[in-house]
Amino acid sequence: MEKDSSIKKSRAIRRLVIWYKRNSAVTSIVDTAANSAVTASNVAGNVVSGAGSVVSTASNVAGNVAGNVVSSAESVVNTASNVVSSASSIAKNTLQPLVFDPLKRLQNSDNLISKEEVPNSERIWIAVDGMGGDYAPVPILEGCLGAISRFPINIKFVGKIEKVRYEAERVGLIDLLEKEIDNNRLELIDSGDPIGMNEEATAVRKRKDASINVAMDLVKTNKAKAVYSAGNSGALMASAIFRIGRLKGIERPAIGALFPTRDQTRPVLVLDVGANTDCKPSYLHQFALLGNVYAKDVLQIEKPRIGLLNIGEEECKGNDLSIKTFELLSNEKSFNFGGNCEGRDVLSGDFDVVVCDGFTGNILLKFLESVGGVLLDILRSELPRGRRGKVGSAFLKSNLLRIKKRLDHAEHGGALLLGVNGICVIGHGSSKSLSVVSALRLAHSAVNHNVMENLNQLQKLQVLNS
Amino acid sequence: MEKDSSIKKSRAIRRLVIWYKRNSAVTSIVDTAANSAVTASNVAGNVVSGAGSVVSTASNVAGNVAGNVVSSAESVVNTASNVVSSASSIAKNTLQPLVFDPLKRLQNSDNLISKEEVPNSERIWIAVDGMGGDYAPVPILEGCLGAISRFPINIKFVGKIEKVRYEAERVGLIDLLEKEIDNNRLELIDSGDPIGMNEEATAVRKRKDASINVAMDLVKTNKAKAVYSAGNSGALMASAIFRIGRLKGIERPAIGALFPTRDQTRPVLVLDVGANTDCKPSYLHQFALLGNVYAKDVLQIEKPRIGLLNIGEEECKGNDLSIKTFELLSNEKSFNFGGNCEGRDVLSGDFDVVVCDGFTGNILLKFLESVGGVLLDILRSELPRGRRGKVGSAFLKSNLLRIKKRLDHAEHGGALLLGVNGICVIGHGSSKSLSVVSALRLAHSAVNHNVMENLNQLQKLQVLNS
Repeated sequence: MEKDSSIKKSRAIRRLVIWYKRNSAVTSIVDTAANSAVTASNVAGNVVSGAGSVVSTASNVAGNVAGNVVSSAESVVNTASNVVSSASSIAKNTLQPLVFDPLKRLQNSDNLISKEEVPNSERIWIAVDGMGGDYAPVPILEGCLGAISRFPINIKFVGKIEKVRYEAERVGLIDLLEKEIDNNRLELIDSGDPIGMNEEATAVRKRKDASINVAMDLVKTNKAKAVYSAGNSGALMASAIFRIGRLKGIERPAIGALFPTRDQTRPVLVLDVGANTDCKPSYLHQFALLGNVYAKDVLQIEKPRIGLLNIGEEECKGNDLSIKTFELLSNEKSFNFGGNCEGRDVLSGDFDVVVCDGFTGNILLKFLESVGGVLLDILRSELPRGRRGKVGSAFLKSNLLRIKKRLDHAEHGGALLLGVNGICVIGHGSSKSLSVVSALRLAHSAVNHNVMENLNQLQKLQVLNS
Repeated sequence: MEKDSSIKKSRAIRRLVIWYKRNSAVTSIVDTAANSAVTASNVAGNVVSGAGSVVSTASNVAGNVAGNVVSSAESVVNTASNVVSSASSIAKNTLQPLVFDPLKRLQNSDNLISKEEVPNSERIWIAVDGMGGDYAPVPILEGCLGAISRFPINIKFVGKIEKVRYEAERVGLIDLLEKEIDNNRLELIDSGDPIGMNEEATAVRKRKDASINVAMDLVKTNKAKAVYSAGNSGALMASAIFRIGRLKGIERPAIGALFPTRDQTRPVLVLDVGANTDCKPSYLHQFALLGNVYAKDVLQIEKPRIGLLNIGEEECKGNDLSIKTFELLSNEKSFNFGGNCEGRDVLSGDFDVVVCDGFTGNILLKFLESVGGVLLDILRSELPRGRRGKVGSAFLKSNLLRIKKRLDHAEHGGALLLGVNGICVIGHGSSKSLSVVSALRLAHSAVNHNVMENLNQLQKLQVLNS
């Protein structure tokens, strides 16, 4: 028996290596994250300097006109100061990232809970990989401290304690950190180095003390209800599979991302966005079952409408995979199958969950992410010239930037690893503190709405026991 | 022998039926085309009425202020009239569809040719399915007449002559039509009814006199160099395969669509966008060979950069299909393979041709088409209120509408059927006259740059003869 299980394990590892090598959501989302962040901040910089030039133009205008036509000076100055104030508000809006929050409509109730001063014993502990992410640990720590003050959660912050304290000291977070430790709302848990962004996911097997492993063990031993990491997402998946395991009957875990839709309050959960490039119909069926539970519990949608990503509405349309999957989904009574979802329907708001293979999902996710930037570029090249043009440009850019942020969010806000025996939230490698807060809200929402209980119920379904 | 070939034919038909049933680019692009058109014209209407209200607000402002502060009245009135003129130019821009033209940079040379008054004997004859399309024959005829005056092409207009003449009379195109017939630049060719938008593609087998069949025969008998249809695109494909046949060594024809990129003058040819939902690596290899010829000849790119749509940059990333295809493409010496193209790279302008299976390509095409509309919706819900807000809104909307049009163009401008023994341009079902002109330029450009000769050269390649 002993030997048997070790053979099984080594096979599992080999499979994982192959699986990992073929999957990119893992490394390349992370690799290019830094680039995206730099681009975004450049754009922000440009808009701000654009706004600045509008301000100076406006004050020139004000000055000149006042000199020439004294009687109309006052009204012109007023206009100029309006322009100035609108320009500075544009600058301000641009600098304060308006992160789109897919859980916006849950926000009020969350805040309510927080204001009721939940006793510490009822606050939920979440394990955080404090070392994972391009800029860790500072923005991770900052986000955790922010989240503690907003939601009834406590944080087990896993990392090299010495380094965490040193960095907290450096950026002036040390007092708040000490205070929350004293309040018993944050706990520092020592670990080794994180798994690097470019390391193979299988490194989690060798480095038992890697921060993600230590964090995952906290979930395994029930010392935390969920885990969050903005580090190597392949390593997160591997660690989850090896330490807390898959749910019974789920052949493959999937990564689910929230895409924005026409309706700001109603995002759509798309899965898989990269964990499984070649899928069987049974995988997609399981993704739909998982997505249904998450949409009900986390997005608080009573009867989530499940769609199958496909190239036509009719059931006869599609490739082999989608035609066979259609049959499975339409025979499934435990959720509300809404039929095929074409490319143009993904963002329509007509579906709450869209299932697809990880190849198509990953391409769609990254395509969506790029669209905002392309639009900005096209616009910039077409913006009208002249003074009025400049005001218009600043106006336009700030609006488009907001939309771009919303589109970017699909990656930035935190994806879910579905199908494992615990709640795992995957942060974007370039996560700043606001993204961390947003991801921790997602984690809190999942725990708070009993996702795990419902997933355990799910496992009793006939289809997952055959 | 006779029997053998008839068995082969009936097998081919059965395969075509299966193939057709699984493919949607065919009917659903067409089915929903009318809807898109209606939406677009509604949006245009809204923007125009928005512009109108800006005008009246502006004149109110002008009036009030002039009454109160007489000395500053003149400058305010000037401002108001500026606003009025800018508002009306917004309205004008919105009403005159600024169709994005992927062949913009070829336009000058095309016009040059046209101005040189090419003798009629050198003008290229193009067969047009005059009955195909949601609004046929009027916008098709109008587009043809427009194209004749711009490029050195002549048109064989296939349709029910009586109906065409009746409609031309009704909309006042009859004089121009008669003139071009007298000039020997347009010829009316009689046919039966078109294959309906919702008919099975295989109907082309039974209805020999369907307009698409008559048009296709003109190419087969070399009376026309290319064929254009905005009708049932499945029927176009079926007619092409049965009448003019596939190129030697090409297992499956593919539909190629031009997507806009960051660089307005440099679209990217994406194929397949819907003809083949399940592909083998050899198909994708052939798509790349075909795309290379078209990008060289039609887009006039010296060494087109070919990309393979995939989920990571490294060659080990991807699904079974893309990993195997990567190997084929990187061993191909006859074109410039630029490696994997991730979802975020499609619109980057880094690639001139992107190959993928028809399932993924179709989802991407329709997703792209929807993004513009979703952005408009999100913006509309977030636009600032107040007078300045209104001016900004009108400004913003007109710009976004232009971008939306550009995104829509991927479908509207005309797709290419690649891999058959002739030049076939597939128009969008909802094509208006400008789209027809744009598609006919594409057809002219393909003929003019010797695409067919180069495709014949292509067939000598070892890889297509093994």
